Amino acid sequence: MQGSILDARAKAPGPTPAAAMMLDASHDPSLRSWVASARNHAEFPIQNLPLGVFAPDAGPARGGVAIGDEILDLAALATSGLCADIREIVMVASAPSLNGFLGLGTGARKRLRARLSALLADGSPAQAALKPMLHPAEKCTLGLPARIGDYTDFYAGIQHALNIGSLLRPDNPLLPNYKHIPIGYNGRASSVRPSGEAFPRPKGQRKRPDDTDPTFGPCRNLDYELELGIWIGPGNAPGSAIPIDEADDRIAGFCLLNDWSARDIQAWEYQPLGPFLSKGFATTISPWIVTAEAMAPFRKAQKPRPKGDPAALAYLSPSDATVPHALDVTLEVYIETAAMRAKGLAPHRLSLGTTQDLYWTPAQFVAHHSSNGCNLAPGDLFGSGTISGRDPGSFGSLMEITRGGREPITLPNGESRTYLVDGDAIIMRAAARREGFASIGFGECRAEVLPARG
Amino acid sequence: MQGSILDARAKAPGPTPAAAMMLDASHDPSLRSWVASARNHAEFPIQNLPLGVFAPDAGPARGGVAIGDEILDLAALATSGLCADIREIVMVASAPSLNGFLGLGTGARKRLRARLSALLADGSPAQAALKPMLHPAEKCTLGLPARIGDYTDFYAGIQHALNIGSLLRPDNPLLPNYKHIPIGYNGRASSVRPSGEAFPRPKGQRKRPDDTDPTFGPCRNLDYELELGIWIGPGNAPGSAIPIDEADDRIAGFCLLNDWSARDIQAWEYQPLGPFLSKGFATTISPWIVTAEAMAPFRKAQKPRPKGDPAALAYLSPSDATVPHALDVTLEVYIETAAMRAKGLAPHRLSLGTTQDLYWTPAQFVAHHSSNGCNLAPGDLFGSGTISGRDPGSFGSLMEITRGGREPITLPNGESRTYLVDGDAIIMRAAARREGFASIGFGECRAEVLPARG
Repeated sequence: MQGSILDARAKAPGPTPAAAMMLDASHDPSLRSWVASARNHAEFPIQNLPLGVFAPDAGPARGGVAIGDEILDLAALATSGLCADIREIVMVASAPSLNGFLGLGTGARKRLRARLSALLADGSPAQAALKPMLHPAEKCTLGLPARIGDYTDFYAGIQHALNIGSLLRPDNPLLPNYKHIPIGYNGRASSVRPSGEAFPRPKGQRKRPDDTDPTFGPCRNLDYELELGIWIGPGNAPGSAIPIDEADDRIAGFCLLNDWSARDIQAWEYQPLGPFLSKGFATTISPWIVTAEAMAPFRKAQKPRPKGDPAALAYLSPSDATVPHALDVTLEVYIETAAMRAKGLAPHRLSLGTTQDLYWTPAQFVAHHSSNGCNLAPGDLFGSGTISGRDPGSFGSLMEITRGGREPITLPNGESRTYLVDGDAIIMRAAARREGFASIGFGECRAEVLPARG
Repeated sequence: MQGSILDARAKAPGPTPAAAMMLDASHDPSLRSWVASARNHAEFPIQNLPLGVFAPDAGPARGGVAIGDEILDLAALATSGLCADIREIVMVASAPSLNGFLGLGTGARKRLRARLSALLADGSPAQAALKPMLHPAEKCTLGLPARIGDYTDFYAGIQHALNIGSLLRPDNPLLPNYKHIPIGYNGRASSVRPSGEAFPRPKGQRKRPDDTDPTFGPCRNLDYELELGIWIGPGNAPGSAIPIDEADDRIAGFCLLNDWSARDIQAWEYQPLGPFLSKGFATTISPWIVTAEAMAPFRKAQKPRPKGDPAALAYLSPSDATVPHALDVTLEVYIETAAMRAKGLAPHRLSLGTTQDLYWTPAQFVAHHSSNGCNLAPGDLFGSGTISGRDPGSFGSLMEITRGGREPITLPNGESRTYLVDGDAIIMRAAARREGFASIGFGECRAEVLPARG
């Protein structure tokens, strides 16, 4: 992927960051791992240490940590003598789903991170003991990191909301509630899938404006949506709310999320209760949980709202606006058509976006979601909403890029697209970069569209 | 509850029913149990045998069966010698959540039902062995019968859709898709609660039409919605669909469902992605799964669609329209205010509805939901949508009864209501009756509204 965000990496230590109080030795950019592939790794250097659930060539699924091109087996680590003092934590993190670990919260994540950082760092005396616990990632299958209790999809990409709204309501693109409420809806949890799982084109009811009646058949306008995924850690009791100042502490980590969307099915079904089957056939996520701790250097204060925008209500307003609640993550979408694959051509980048274009922060999602007493639980997953910027190169869906399918795009190999065709794979990647820190990545979020079944 | 549907019971055997092929000895109305309280029991005679998860005074939660005023402990039954040949089934049904049992499907449910029917019938030689396995229901706590993977709320009460639509769009109450699609949306699974769990009034953003800006605070227009709940049994693999003719076989049973609704929060939040926090603070269900087998005598062929309505598309049309896919269940909603409770007054009935007013059948829900390849799983829960009839005495929500809060109702003790006040409890009940069969009930679906939290 030439020209990818992953090629550019901050190399030299810079000035002391403002958020230094949240950082520790595990963030030191000069820290290097004895795992050779982790040195200068574009995504998984020792400063990242994301958690996931993997199955090696032979053997059951278990918790693991990505380090370079390898995965450290937490089940093996738990039974070693290298973590006797935090054995309970490592045991829970080695389970075939990380819900228990996510529920332990920030303290446990930090203790595990500190230990992993020390064990995997250059000069660690544990190197010989750990080597047999490493599995080549390319030989492993990665599953969902946790059983997703509930999946909630937000709509915080304001430019996306404007782009979509201007297609539907040119004179009034943004609804009156948008700048007051982090708009969201309940998604389908069962159909969230880990990267790599292809799925058939969904069928459904759709009706073109000039059709008299709807028909049932394969989706004609299949699209992707580029989103940030947010993994919830410790939840709240039913009937209680999580105050905005405590909200970041309930977020365990982040991933990439492709909110596949059947636009024709959506247009016909969504009134009055919102998207349903047009989304619930598949949602693809990157399989690694990039922890809140790994993301600490890449937090930013929320952008000031444009002049004239309403202030957020008190329950959505952190008491200290300078605390960096927002994120600075760069995200990419690539398309790889069947023809590209057949000829060995590199995937083509469709967009490059940034989480700084989100109108609401993850903490605001948490505070809003629980404000009615709704109980969140470890392993709940949020989507940020589609991330789009102002120019077409940063639009996070084909519906935006092709203006509702009216303006096809031409790919470098001569193919054209309005919406996706069978055989197309969509690949998302993300990177967090900052002067003075090691860049980290999220791993791949990829899935291919298969032909509709029978 | 004087005058309740539960007072009226069919007593004498009648003519052989059309659906006799689906019935067996367990439905014989002359069958009586040696459990004295089960004889002529309004809800739980031996012909019902609903499954749930209960915890006795002391001891952990486990699977149980309601029989009269008692609960039969399936964990005790599993380790007895009374079911050696179906021990695996009883073991799974005795777990603290019934997901595993629901996944076993129709065959296992029928085998368990046949055995329970024989064991609990008059003249059973197992009476002495079973007596110690009975717990008085009033001394037990009933939990959720299963871990709900995903909860989907449909909107199949056409009169409700008309009533609500006429408040919002007097000239065009029913949207164009309504008679083509079983409209539904994803609900919040984590906030589904068993009967008896009170909850605080939710807070949220709301904005009156003449307010300049929204405010955050306790819901002003708290409402209930009367629905039938549907428990999913064996699911489908991702990407596959469940054909309409196989759909009933994926339904394990039924319950009552109160889709509590914060109308003011809903009005402000729901565009463009549907209801979210206005629903996700609490959904109360009756704790017993009334099995598909117990409901067999109370199936009906779907009402023919009114002249002029479009035919259902093929994927929603059973190949034999005479197969009884619809249900004949009568449902009631009662209000019990704090003042009523203090004076020992009986709850007041707000509405009396019937599942025959649903435009779509449970089988159509299943076929539609999976038509896009969405994978359903054992323990998924569907709500039918609010069940309302044509006259105000059969409207399934206060929004309909009070015409959007504009026409208060007066209760028999002189209190008046537009929407619910703190201390109000809403109680739902349901009964299935048919000439020639023993009537069965669903048990209570009850919850009280507590004051909003500080």
